[in-house]
Amino acid sequence: MSVLVVGSLALDTIETPFGLAKDTVGGSAVYISAAASYFVNPIRLVGVVGGDFPNHGLAFLEERNVDLEGLQVVENGRTFRWSGRYRYDLNERDTLSTDLNVFELFDPKIPEKYRKSRTVCLGNIDPVLQRKVLDQMEKPRVVICDTMNYWIERKNKELLETLKYINILILNDSEARLLSHEPNLIKAGRVIRSLGPSVVIIKKGEHGALLLTDQMVFSAPAYPMENIFDPTGAGDSFAGGFVGWLSRTDDMSEENLKRAVIYGSTLASFCVEKFGVEGLRDLTYLQIQDRFREFRELSRFDLD
Amino acid sequence: MSVLVVGSLALDTIETPFGLAKDTVGGSAVYISAAASYFVNPIRLVGVVGGDFPNHGLAFLEERNVDLEGLQVVENGRTFRWSGRYRYDLNERDTLSTDLNVFELFDPKIPEKYRKSRTVCLGNIDPVLQRKVLDQMEKPRVVICDTMNYWIERKNKELLETLKYINILILNDSEARLLSHEPNLIKAGRVIRSLGPSVVIIKKGEHGALLLTDQMVFSAPAYPMENIFDPTGAGDSFAGGFVGWLSRTDDMSEENLKRAVIYGSTLASFCVEKFGVEGLRDLTYLQIQDRFREFRELSRFDLD
Repeated sequence: MSVLVVGSLALDTIETPFGLAKDTVGGSAVYISAAASYFVNPIRLVGVVGGDFPNHGLAFLEERNVDLEGLQVVENGRTFRWSGRYRYDLNERDTLSTDLNVFELFDPKIPEKYRKSRTVCLGNIDPVLQRKVLDQMEKPRVVICDTMNYWIERKNKELLETLKYINILILNDSEARLLSHEPNLIKAGRVIRSLGPSVVIIKKGEHGALLLTDQMVFSAPAYPMENIFDPTGAGDSFAGGFVGWLSRTDDMSEENLKRAVIYGSTLASFCVEKFGVEGLRDLTYLQIQDRFREFRELSRFDLD
Repeated sequence: MSVLVVGSLALDTIETPFGLAKDTVGGSAVYISAAASYFVNPIRLVGVVGGDFPNHGLAFLEERNVDLEGLQVVENGRTFRWSGRYRYDLNERDTLSTDLNVFELFDPKIPEKYRKSRTVCLGNIDPVLQRKVLDQMEKPRVVICDTMNYWIERKNKELLETLKYINILILNDSEARLLSHEPNLIKAGRVIRSLGPSVVIIKKGEHGALLLTDQMVFSAPAYPMENIFDPTGAGDSFAGGFVGWLSRTDDMSEENLKRAVIYGSTLASFCVEKFGVEGLRDLTYLQIQDRFREFRELSRFDLD
């Protein structure tokens, strides 16, 4: 039930219609680890920060029982920074700046004791680094990968090579269209599955998510959020909840993949209720179960 | 179980990436009636055509057992014409032209025998005409209404007046945002319900539909269409399937409203598989049942 998470640790500056947060702790590895930690422990994290990464950021991860042995700290370097602004409907965001900083020279080193992790979750980082991680692993049972338009456009060849080693790819609808050159999402999923991943999950924000395998299409509803405070980290929290549930249950059946998608959606819904990582700080397993059941009510109907 | 349908009968010129159809039979009343006719018979239609409306259009409706007593034929007039072009992903369309023709002077007259219809479905026409219809009815049990951005923008005051008399409003997501001035669809639904309708259905195209009441949010999946041939009439077919099922069952419970939404989605999915009204020509009740069950499989998941 061991899970390795590789991704970014960041200081995000986020503007939403509700306020501005400067240099708040974020990054794909942080959100994924925190979300997954509600299902399985410990989560093993590999990433890099500069000397300016705040202690409370590390303390947050330690409280969530995340193993930080694989975290590189470049004392004289600056942590990766991202800055973005959400438009008034929170469905779209503009990236204002991206400063790779210590990420520019990041060379992921997987500690010896991490190499037999059964589940590997590759957060949204350079596909070359994603493959470097896989090269160091000893036969993981399942490899889950996130990516984004940035890599699809700028490292397309490298991403296509990495995809050959991926079991489950998670991406959003516009990224699926971009990667597949196919506007129809069902067809896009088929194209992407032909590139390597046997399972593709397409996140559609306020419209839920699609789970696509060779046998099945599953349509997961979105939680009816009235008060989204900060959408940052929703996608990574989705990945974390998904990975956490899969790892906890060690069951790759289609029925269980569906449940994992709903647990991913559940964690994403908690994430966006507060600013930054706060929505993932103090959840209980009971809260998570209750919301999972709400998802079921949301989409359930009887034949007669 | 009597259903009155009021709306447009049109000659549509449609451009899709797959071809061009000129002056093909369409219009909201045609699609709604044809879709509803698979659930309940006869459907009573009120609308207007010019002398140029082709006999095969009328024959199509008669084959579907639609009662045409309420159809006005202006022998020396021209039928309403709409022309539009779909973009390559079929999710967006541009209206190229709208010629009201005989619709400009349309004054809906409800035949005596129609006035006690239990269910009234007001297709997407001028809200002033929609209210004129209601003024002639004798206590319908349920009034279902469709509208569009055109009326929201140009006849806002009149539409708000009409909404006071509507039980169930069906509109799409961008129209819901426009009408409510609220980007969040759950909040938009609440705003719209405060204007009159106790039930609001928000259609989201390839993302399914939301059913909103004061007690419930229901998220209906979209059928995973790989080959959409012509999206024209999808929204009206949805309304027709919805109205048809509600009328057939005479059951306004929330559980049955959910089923009606799925039957609406079912008829819409058949509609878009062929050009114009062809997708609604020769369905069987068994085909409809089978697809309804497919919708259930698409969104079903178990707790464990």
